Amino acid sequence: MAVITDPKKIEQVLRKNVDAVYPDFDSLKKRMMTGKRIRLYCGFDPSSPFLHLGNMAIFKKMAEFQSLGHEVIMLIGDFTGMIGDPTDKKAARKKLTREGVVKNSKNYKDIAGKILNFKGSNPAKVLYNSKWLDKISFKDLIDLASNFTVQQVIARDMFQERIKDQKPIYLHEFLYPLAQAYDSVAMDVDLEIGGSDQIFIMLCGRDLVKALKNSEKFFLSLMLLPDESGKKMGKTEGNAISITDQPDELRRKIMLMEDSAINPVFNACTDASLEEIKSLDPIGAKEKLADTIISMIYGKDRAEKTKKEFNRVFIEKKLPSEIATVKIEAESLNILDLLVRTRLAPNKSEAKRLVLQKGVKIGEVIQDDWKKNIEIKKGLVIQVGKGKFVKVI
Amino acid sequence: MAVITDPKKIEQVLRKNVDAVYPDFDSLKKRMMTGKRIRLYCGFDPSSPFLHLGNMAIFKKMAEFQSLGHEVIMLIGDFTGMIGDPTDKKAARKKLTREGVVKNSKNYKDIAGKILNFKGSNPAKVLYNSKWLDKISFKDLIDLASNFTVQQVIARDMFQERIKDQKPIYLHEFLYPLAQAYDSVAMDVDLEIGGSDQIFIMLCGRDLVKALKNSEKFFLSLMLLPDESGKKMGKTEGNAISITDQPDELRRKIMLMEDSAINPVFNACTDASLEEIKSLDPIGAKEKLADTIISMIYGKDRAEKTKKEFNRVFIEKKLPSEIATVKIEAESLNILDLLVRTRLAPNKSEAKRLVLQKGVKIGEVIQDDWKKNIEIKKGLVIQVGKGKFVKVI
Repeated sequence: MAVITDPKKIEQVLRKNVDAVYPDFDSLKKRMMTGKRIRLYCGFDPSSPFLHLGNMAIFKKMAEFQSLGHEVIMLIGDFTGMIGDPTDKKAARKKLTREGVVKNSKNYKDIAGKILNFKGSNPAKVLYNSKWLDKISFKDLIDLASNFTVQQVIARDMFQERIKDQKPIYLHEFLYPLAQAYDSVAMDVDLEIGGSDQIFIMLCGRDLVKALKNSEKFFLSLMLLPDESGKKMGKTEGNAISITDQPDELRRKIMLMEDSAINPVFNACTDASLEEIKSLDPIGAKEKLADTIISMIYGKDRAEKTKKEFNRVFIEKKLPSEIATVKIEAESLNILDLLVRTRLAPNKSEAKRLVLQKGVKIGEVIQDDWKKNIEIKKGLVIQVGKGKFVKVI
Repeated sequence: MAVITDPKKIEQVLRKNVDAVYPDFDSLKKRMMTGKRIRLYCGFDPSSPFLHLGNMAIFKKMAEFQSLGHEVIMLIGDFTGMIGDPTDKKAARKKLTREGVVKNSKNYKDIAGKILNFKGSNPAKVLYNSKWLDKISFKDLIDLASNFTVQQVIARDMFQERIKDQKPIYLHEFLYPLAQAYDSVAMDVDLEIGGSDQIFIMLCGRDLVKALKNSEKFFLSLMLLPDESGKKMGKTEGNAISITDQPDELRRKIMLMEDSAINPVFNACTDASLEEIKSLDPIGAKEKLADTIISMIYGKDRAEKTKKEFNRVFIEKKLPSEIATVKIEAESLNILDLLVRTRLAPNKSEAKRLVLQKGVKIGEVIQDDWKKNIEIKKGLVIQVGKGKFVKVI
């Protein structure tokens, strides 16, 4: 397809939800105005099958470039995933198997495919960085590493924090920027997209492309989605809203978001303009956000269904229309054993916490005695928190 | 051959010219007393064909272990030579070709072979670390690197100095300890020998052997040979006495050493006991040292010849018995041009410096006018400094 050079459309892509453009907005705009196709990518760390709204914002931005006719690569970090991006990490990460990575990332393509186009005349590509990084030898690495200084790498925020806290930085974590920088060289890209917490890593890629190819790699950082406390919303923080959740769960989480977190997500994940977003009241905004996001991923009908279900449970305070069931043979069980057996709690101490916090209802009655024995009857409904139900059959 | 467990001989090997034993003297002695053969090595950086008295001290120590029946490996760092050991280095080093390394190290084996035995029932081996390091992939390196922390590597003295001086440390230099540590793993050695400036690197090897093989690698550091100012004598400092020089040059350099530098070299490079060394007067000590070292490398006859020659030129102030000759067609030449043409000075500015410092004699007359034209005659002798002569033919 032809590359679209409409300055208004380019401006829109380069402004909406964008944190910064490197080296600067004007240079990238100028490059895009030439009508020459841009090859761009974003890397995804396949540490779990889980994708969140921050990832969705990335897919959205990639789709915007795709719709202008540019070439989009979704890069799965199956090699770098072995090292583990040390961004904000306090502890070493479990290593992944190649199979696990491929399995996790299959899911990424499915979800991204709701937003990006993997077919048609300008299909997005999926690449795996093991393809080139598996072939890098120690000798190659010496050559690559000679383009960076220790001072440059150690300046990274979280390394400085670890040094301050007298926590170890393992030497292999120092190799992460190198591996990711080499991705840009191997794929010969013009542009990288990432969250604003990826600027350091994207700068390394820019430096290496300059050193090895004497060309300029642009990059574009997106705003991070804040959680209610203003922190970045992400996998690491454990506060992310997963878009790989079941649609009812996704609706519930969006509807229960803090009001202040709605506008940034709206701006990042939908086509709505800031004026449109600001004109909505908080409840209306949440409903529209949930409708839009669930429609994008699961379709309009499904979005409509989750809305009805949400109203039924949270507004009308009825039981959900479908409740997971569990068969229990015992005549009675201690409440903690029951919660663990029905998987409403991962273990007894968590079950106890839930009971003491009055988060457990059995047969419509809030339970606060963790020593209590519960008589097991067919049809008994056990509820934890606002949205988790199980029925005994 | 059987391993010798005579405690007196072991003590001698572990004490003479030894700076430290890791983890401690007693553990290594105990290990050697078991009669089990020890596999030990020292690594040599093949940056030039040049070997100095510090290297000779290492060969000597290796030979002592060999004479007790232990297995000795001379490791040529043909892979690590590509990175360049950053010990005390202020600037990046020129990379070596594989061919250059092999050529330089052929010379090492020849010289070492005067002291170590590369034949017989317990021959020393020569290994090249490219054999295993060429095969290390990026993925392997991640695993290796995870055994070290950045804090541990950066603690190295010369890295701290560079940080203090705000000079860059290149990331590939951080990989040097890793490569050298892996040598110990690949060769499965029990012991490493090195100068006391190599302790950091040898500790890394110890750590990696512990981590990957759960076994203990000992190491033994030798005293560094001081130059007249008390600094380490070595290639990097440019003050080393080369044992790959011509024998007359070697005699000259030893005879001109500062008195204070004699005893350490004597102790490090010969079998003489400290008592024996201390009983000699400075001139006698120098003569004996020169005799012993030149005999070891070039044979007794040659040592005797260098002694005669030294006395002829430096005591009797006669011309050397053999003088390099040069054919010059011109009738006269400016003195600076003459010095450059005869290769007694590398360039005209150095030639000028030599003339102004009264370091140049032509036809027995000291020359101090750098503008002077010299009449060229057959048989004219040109002398620079105490020992460099050229005759015009």
